[in-house]
Amino acid sequence: MPVVQIEMLPGRNLEQKRAMVKRVTEALVETINCKPERVKIIIREVAKEHLADSGVLYLDQE
Amino acid sequence: MPVVQIEMLPGRNLEQKRAMVKRVTEALVETINCKPERVKIIIREVAKEHLADSGVLYLDQE
Amino acid sequence: MPVVQIEMLPGRNLEQKRAMVKRVTEALVETINCKPERVKIIIREVAKEHLADSGVLYLDQE
Amino acid sequence: MPVVQIEMLPGRNLEQKRAMVKRVTEALVETINCKPERVKIIIREVAKEHLADSGVLYLDQE
Amino acid sequence: MPVVQIEMLPGRNLEQKRAMVKRVTEALVETINCKPERVKIIIREVAKEHLADSGVLYLDQE
Amino acid sequence: MPVVQIEMLPGRNLEQKRAMVKRVTEALVETINCKPERVKIIIREVAKEHLADSGVLYLDQE
Repeated sequence: MPVVQIEMLPGRNLEQKRAMVKRVTEALVETINCKPERVKIIIREVAKEHLADSGVLYLDQE
Repeated sequence: MPVVQIEMLPGRNLEQKRAMVKRVTEALVETINCKPERVKIIIREVAKEHLADSGVLYLDQE
Repeated sequence: MPVVQIEMLPGRNLEQKRAMVKRVTEALVETINCKPERVKIIIREVAKEHLADSGVLYLDQE
Repeated sequence: MPVVQIEMLPGRNLEQKRAMVKRVTEALVETINCKPERVKIIIREVAKEHLADSGVLYLDQE
Repeated sequence: MPVVQIEMLPGRNLEQKRAMVKRVTEALVETINCKPERVKIIIREVAKEHLADSGVLYLDQE
Repeated sequence: MPVVQIEMLPGRNLEQKRAMVKRVTEALVETINCKPERVKIIIREVAKEHLADSGVLYLDQE
């Protein structure tokens, strides 16, 4: 049943996303012993002006 | 107080979204006995390249 | 593919939860035209000391 | 470690977002006693057609 | 309309939570110009065995 | 910066959770090219009475 939500910066291409969901699914299957068809992944890209650490937007950290 | 977050594929028109939030709200009001004005719904559309089942992006499942 | 997350106060019994997920799923199937087996629902109960409106915990609003 | 997710209507400018993450971070640091560098904030803008109260989209409430 | 979700370690007392939701709400009202009664906050406490940084559970970082 | 939220059924022991966060973090580092110390993972266990597929609680699917 695992539902995985991944928030990350934009900029990854399709090939990287393909590899990411494949590898994350394998990681779950092999460690918590669930069936691969039970793993659902949702990716959300978050712009640098919508993320902050230490009270400062990523946009302003560069 | 219920807060409902719905992730779904894009492609539904405004009429469908209108009907969806109306019906989901009614479903909550009638089953868990809350006031309609307490129900808040957030919809998030998720592209096929940002969703995966069984380690495969929806984009690649067609 | 819809994934629905519902946050609500504790206190509903199993019968109410059963009815809620059935009715919410029907609401989605009939309005956005998805297959019922695609609808996944996650319920999270949130205690009154973990919810706030207008800057005041629900616990203190009674 | 706090992770804060903020869903809000679009329309705020960069200056407002800068001030918001600064002030929210300070609020956490001063009340729950965590280190500022531990506070991560994710902002998500949600369009008026993707939000509902009382079963009615914000778009239709104006 | 802002909906704020805060994930944090357990261990804060009621007084700290009260102060936190008050201060976070004020931070939003003053920076993004929304009405206080529109701000809803959901707190979720997450145990140290359910949090990880750098691939290591918080439980194992002490 | 990736923030990963994983919802799963209870029942995994600490060793499995340790392995899971390690492997998921490696999966991200190797596919989307982020630094391991940037990966934050939040696990949420969801009881069988709080999960549904096809409008039926997991509790009733066994």
